[in-house]
Amino acid sequence: VSWVPVPPDAPFGTAELPYGVFRVGDERPRIGVAVADRILDLAGLARAAGFDADVVEATSLNPFLALGPDAWAESRAILTSLLSEESAQDVVQPHLVPAATAVMSMPFEVADYVDFYASEHHARRVGEILRPGTPPLTPNWKHLPIGYHGRAGSVVVSGTEVTRPRGLRGGPGEEPLFGPTTKLDFEAELGWVVGAGSEGPVAVAAFESHVFGVVLLNDWSARDIQAYEYVPLGPFLGKSFATSISAWVVPLAALEEAATAPPVQDPPLAPYLQGPSVGYDLELSVELNGFRISRCPYASMYYTPAQLVAHTTVNGATLRTGDLLGSGTVSGQDPDQAGSLIELTRDARELLTVADQRRGYLEDGDEVVLRASAHGLRLGEVRGRICPSPAFSGS
Amino acid sequence: VSWVPVPPDAPFGTAELPYGVFRVGDERPRIGVAVADRILDLAGLARAAGFDADVVEATSLNPFLALGPDAWAESRAILTSLLSEESAQDVVQPHLVPAATAVMSMPFEVADYVDFYASEHHARRVGEILRPGTPPLTPNWKHLPIGYHGRAGSVVVSGTEVTRPRGLRGGPGEEPLFGPTTKLDFEAELGWVVGAGSEGPVAVAAFESHVFGVVLLNDWSARDIQAYEYVPLGPFLGKSFATSISAWVVPLAALEEAATAPPVQDPPLAPYLQGPSVGYDLELSVELNGFRISRCPYASMYYTPAQLVAHTTVNGATLRTGDLLGSGTVSGQDPDQAGSLIELTRDARELLTVADQRRGYLEDGDEVVLRASAHGLRLGEVRGRICPSPAFSGS
Repeated sequence: VSWVPVPPDAPFGTAELPYGVFRVGDERPRIGVAVADRILDLAGLARAAGFDADVVEATSLNPFLALGPDAWAESRAILTSLLSEESAQDVVQPHLVPAATAVMSMPFEVADYVDFYASEHHARRVGEILRPGTPPLTPNWKHLPIGYHGRAGSVVVSGTEVTRPRGLRGGPGEEPLFGPTTKLDFEAELGWVVGAGSEGPVAVAAFESHVFGVVLLNDWSARDIQAYEYVPLGPFLGKSFATSISAWVVPLAALEEAATAPPVQDPPLAPYLQGPSVGYDLELSVELNGFRISRCPYASMYYTPAQLVAHTTVNGATLRTGDLLGSGTVSGQDPDQAGSLIELTRDARELLTVADQRRGYLEDGDEVVLRASAHGLRLGEVRGRICPSPAFSGS
Repeated sequence: VSWVPVPPDAPFGTAELPYGVFRVGDERPRIGVAVADRILDLAGLARAAGFDADVVEATSLNPFLALGPDAWAESRAILTSLLSEESAQDVVQPHLVPAATAVMSMPFEVADYVDFYASEHHARRVGEILRPGTPPLTPNWKHLPIGYHGRAGSVVVSGTEVTRPRGLRGGPGEEPLFGPTTKLDFEAELGWVVGAGSEGPVAVAAFESHVFGVVLLNDWSARDIQAYEYVPLGPFLGKSFATSISAWVVPLAALEEAATAPPVQDPPLAPYLQGPSVGYDLELSVELNGFRISRCPYASMYYTPAQLVAHTTVNGATLRTGDLLGSGTVSGQDPDQAGSLIELTRDARELLTVADQRRGYLEDGDEVVLRASAHGLRLGEVRGRICPSPAFSGS
C-alpha cells in the first residue's frame, strides 16, 4: 500500500512502477517511473540523495536495462519501499511530477525488432480471409513461432502521428497501382523488451534473466502493400513505415499475478521450445476514435514470450540490450476479440459500426488507442493518429 | 599518382581510399584509411597536425558517416592530396601502419540491415531449383526490388568465425528435424552503407547524398532452416545467425569509373523507381578453401543501388546513419557465375569439384573468401570460416 493516492482515471496504480523517459518543458529528457498520475523523477531523486545518477540521467533506458536482473530487482525494491513508507514521503514528494505536464520520449533505443505471429486465432482467421479454400494455418505453424525482422528505425513512441504510407499495392499477380494505401490497419500486440544481452541461445527457463519488461505495441500495417510484396521474402514496406510503442515499459516483476499457463501445445514442440514458461492473463482493448471496438485476450496466445526469445536465439543469434520482440496480433477465439481490422471487418467486406459510422480500414484523422490491464494492473496505452500522405516527393 | 608504393599483392591500390576501424596491439580502435598495404592512421595524423580529432578517434565510422557528402568529399580530397604530393611524405609517413600488423573491428554500427533479391539470374535460378514447374520469378519481381529486414545484431566483420546454426529444418510441409543445418551456404553480395540519414522518401537521384560507400557482404544462409520457416513471413533463423562484411568501406567516389548502365528494365517501373541511376561494373570472386569457384558480375544486377534506397524509403521510412542495404546474391547468366552454392550445385544435386574433392554445401572448417575488383580498383575481401555447432545448451 502506497502513500501516493491513485485517482480512478490515473494511467497507472502504484504496483506496476513502469520506467520511461520524460521531460518537462525545455529540460533534458531523463528517466522516470510512473506512479498513479505522477512521474517519479529518478534523476532528481538520485541527485538529491547524493547518488551517482548517470544511469537515470540518460536519455534512454538502455544503460539501466543493460544492468541486468539483479539491478532491476534492487531498483524495484527501493522504489516500492520509498513509495510505501510514510517516513519517505517528505524526501520523495518533491520529485513527483504531474504526468500530465510531461512530454514522453522513446523509452529505449531499439536494437533489433522482431515481430511474431503467435496467436493461433489471428493466424487462422487471416488465413481464412486471405486464402479461402486452403488450410488456414501453414504446416509449420504449430512447430515453431513464425517471426520476421521489422525496421527498428521506424519504431516510434505513443502519440507520434502516423503518415499514411505509399507504395505499390494490389493482389499477388495483379498489375500494381502506386499510391497511398487504402487498407491501413492496426495490430494490437505486446512487445517484450530485452534488457540483458546474451552470447548465444537463451533457454526458455532463462527468459527473466534477459527480458526486462513489456510495452504495448501497434504494428501498423498496409494490407494492400503487404499483399503485393510479401511473396516470397515476407512483409517489408507494408509494415516498415511505423510501429508505435507505449512510452512506459512495465517490468516483468509487475506481471507475476497475471502469469498463467499457456494453451495446450500439440503436437509436442522441439526440446528447445520446451521448459517452464508462462503466458499472461492480460486483456488488450482497442479504441477507435474513442469507441472500444475490441477486447483481445493475451492468455489465448499459443506461444509464450519465453518461447519467442528461445526461438530467436536457437540458431546462435545473440540478444542485445534494446531488442524488441512483438508478440504478433493478439486475437481471441471470438470474432469480436480480434486485434486487427482485417479480422474485425473481414478485409472490409463486413463493415464495423463505430458510433454512427460504418467503417472498414483506417481513414485519415482516425486515432487508435491500445490499452491493457489485468488483475488490477494497468499497462498504459499506445496512441496514434493517421495523417494523410503528403504530395509525393523524394529528396 | 601516389608516392606510396603498391606491391602487386596489396589489398588495395592508392585510389580506393577505403575507411575502416583498426588497432595495433592493445591500442584503442580508431579510424584509418587503407593505402596499398598500409593503413593511414587518421587519428594520429590529425592529432599531430593539431586538428580536432574526435571524429577519427571514434571506435566506429558512424560519426564520420553522419557528417554527410560535403565532408566525405573534403576528406577524400585532402587524403588524395597528401598521398600524391611528395612534399607531404615526411608528414604522412610516420602515420602509415603496416596493414598486416593491424586488427580490424566492425567498421560501423549497423542501424537497420535490409537485404534484397535484385539479381534476376539468381532469382530465376533459385526459383527453377526450388519450385520446378512453376514460373521462376514471382509476378511482382519486375515491378519492385524485393527485400526484407535482416538482423543488424548478427552483422560481423570479416575474419569472424561463423558457427553452424541449429534449427528446425525440412521441406515445407515435412515433419521437421531439429539439429545443425546440413545446407549451409554463402551468398556473394555487396552492401551499401548509409552515411547521412533522411527524414522520408529518398529519390533515386539523391542516392549519393545519403549513401557513403560499399562493403563486400556474405549473407550466410541455412537453406534447410530457411525452407522450413519462410512461408508466409519470409526468412528468419535461416539467415539471422551471421552476416559478414568487409572491414573496409570503399567510398562511392572511388567507384566512378566502374559506373555503368543497368540492364533494360521492362516493364517500365513506377515513377519513384525511375530517374538517373547507375549500376557498377564490378566482378565479385568467390574462393572456397583457396580455390576460386565463381566470378559474379555485378553489372548484371537488375535493380541499381539507388533504386534499392528509393524503394526502402518510399513508404516514409527514414534512413539512419549505419543502415546497410545488401544487394542480394550477385549471380550472372552463366551457371558458373552464380553467387551461392544452392545455384552452383543445384541444391547439392550436382557436386562441385574443388581441388580433389566433390562438394555440395559448406562443411565445418571450410573458409569462404569474397573479393571484388573492377577497372583496376580493389574492393577488399570478406572472409569467414565455418565452426561446428557446439553441443546445444541454452543459458
